Amino acid sequence: MAANKGACTNPPYELLYWPGIPGRGEFIRLAFEAAGVSYKDTANESENGVKEVIALIDPSSTGTDGNPPLFAPPALRILSASPGDAALIIYQTPSILSYLGPKLSLAGSNEAEAQWILSHTLTVLDLNNEAHDVHHPIAVAKYYEEQKEEALKKAADFRAVRVPKFLGFFERVLKGNEEKGQGKYLVGGKLSYADTTLWNVLSGLLFAFPKEMEARKSDYKLLFGTFYDSLRETSGVKEYLASDRRKPFNMGVFRHYPELDRQ
Amino acid sequence: MAANKGACTNPPYELLYWPGIPGRGEFIRLAFEAAGVSYKDTANESENGVKEVIALIDPSSTGTDGNPPLFAPPALRILSASPGDAALIIYQTPSILSYLGPKLSLAGSNEAEAQWILSHTLTVLDLNNEAHDVHHPIAVAKYYEEQKEEALKKAADFRAVRVPKFLGFFERVLKGNEEKGQGKYLVGGKLSYADTTLWNVLSGLLFAFPKEMEARKSDYKLLFGTFYDSLRETSGVKEYLASDRRKPFNMGVFRHYPELDRQ
Repeated sequence: MAANKGACTNPPYELLYWPGIPGRGEFIRLAFEAAGVSYKDTANESENGVKEVIALIDPSSTGTDGNPPLFAPPALRILSASPGDAALIIYQTPSILSYLGPKLSLAGSNEAEAQWILSHTLTVLDLNNEAHDVHHPIAVAKYYEEQKEEALKKAADFRAVRVPKFLGFFERVLKGNEEKGQGKYLVGGKLSYADTTLWNVLSGLLFAFPKEMEARKSDYKLLFGTFYDSLRETSGVKEYLASDRRKPFNMGVFRHYPELDRQ
Repeated sequence: MAANKGACTNPPYELLYWPGIPGRGEFIRLAFEAAGVSYKDTANESENGVKEVIALIDPSSTGTDGNPPLFAPPALRILSASPGDAALIIYQTPSILSYLGPKLSLAGSNEAEAQWILSHTLTVLDLNNEAHDVHHPIAVAKYYEEQKEEALKKAADFRAVRVPKFLGFFERVLKGNEEKGQGKYLVGGKLSYADTTLWNVLSGLLFAFPKEMEARKSDYKLLFGTFYDSLRETSGVKEYLASDRRKPFNMGVFRHYPELDRQ
């Protein structure tokens, strides 16, 4: 493990997610890295780690060690402070982020900010889901090639209607918070997990739809003039992005199919 | 307003959502009704209420009275205890439910239960979104009739793959919690907003896909043998469902197109 992940050799937090792709696990990784808090990324750090992920979502499981069954990764295992006590396991990206937020000092300065951070994060993750559904509009378990015709139609709508709707919204959030956030933060005057989550989705959109995004970038002055580059240079995030812990986008949520981009 | 909504004439909670349909506002309504806590359902209770909903999502807004702009309803306005102070406005169904959960005693008995309740609720709402996307697989702003061909394909996958995956999961959650929850509660030994949320989605699926659900019901003994009827009879919920505050499913998230059901 890289030294800047912290000196703790037994981190209490374990991320359980598919190895080799950013995917939805990336939102959790970015929160830890931005906070400078140590975590174990089980499936990426050990050869057999993926088996633990698969075991967690065993379709016959009714739960493990007092924890309920999980629908899908990512999951977070929080080791107990008392040896012998069972670990707590939670799942669903927004649930994990809302749990970690206050512990990583990424959930704002008061209850109102904490709720806005969660609200905006959920909106970012809706955009993330829609970006996924562009290449899988009919059936998540089938290949893209089996639903390419429908994907072409959905991509046209996503680029023309959904992308500007979402990006325009986040531009307005930054604008409304400009006095405190200086275009760098969605809520209040400091970094939150809403920022890291939005950044990763923008990064994914730039990868998946480079022509569309290039054509639209200048419409969102705060988002691409301030927010995006500022977050990339944030301490913790910057070192992470330069490390081999940051996996490149490939065939996960964000995919670059040139035929789905602006022509 | 009905007397059983509580004696308070100025409830501090205001739901802002489209009138006349259950939609995503229903998850918030059910939580209030199950808790017996008074709330104002602005767009259903006053003729001009819908204008307030529309104003909230004005596509040029950068926020109101210290609150950020909102992407979409439902929103919750929480009136300040101090006259003259601005109200807090939050949005996104899971964010609203996680805020209200502890205040309505619908968020379990400890931090672990609270996180599982939020995690399961997010999974229920994923199913809710997928049920919506069945009739709008290509473009949310276009008519069903413009994407009917694709909807027929997505419906086939939803019924064959997604419905059993989700229902099988919730059956296992109930099974794993059977000792405490007796098949009536997903988490712990008392009602939570995960239960009311799941109930509403099951109710919607029974409306939208009656033949498919009838054919599958017996596979999920706890879900349809215990959970569904038990929740419907819960104090607060029972009175609500019999009232005219409960709007019938119609042309919202859950729609009954016979051609999308099992043939």
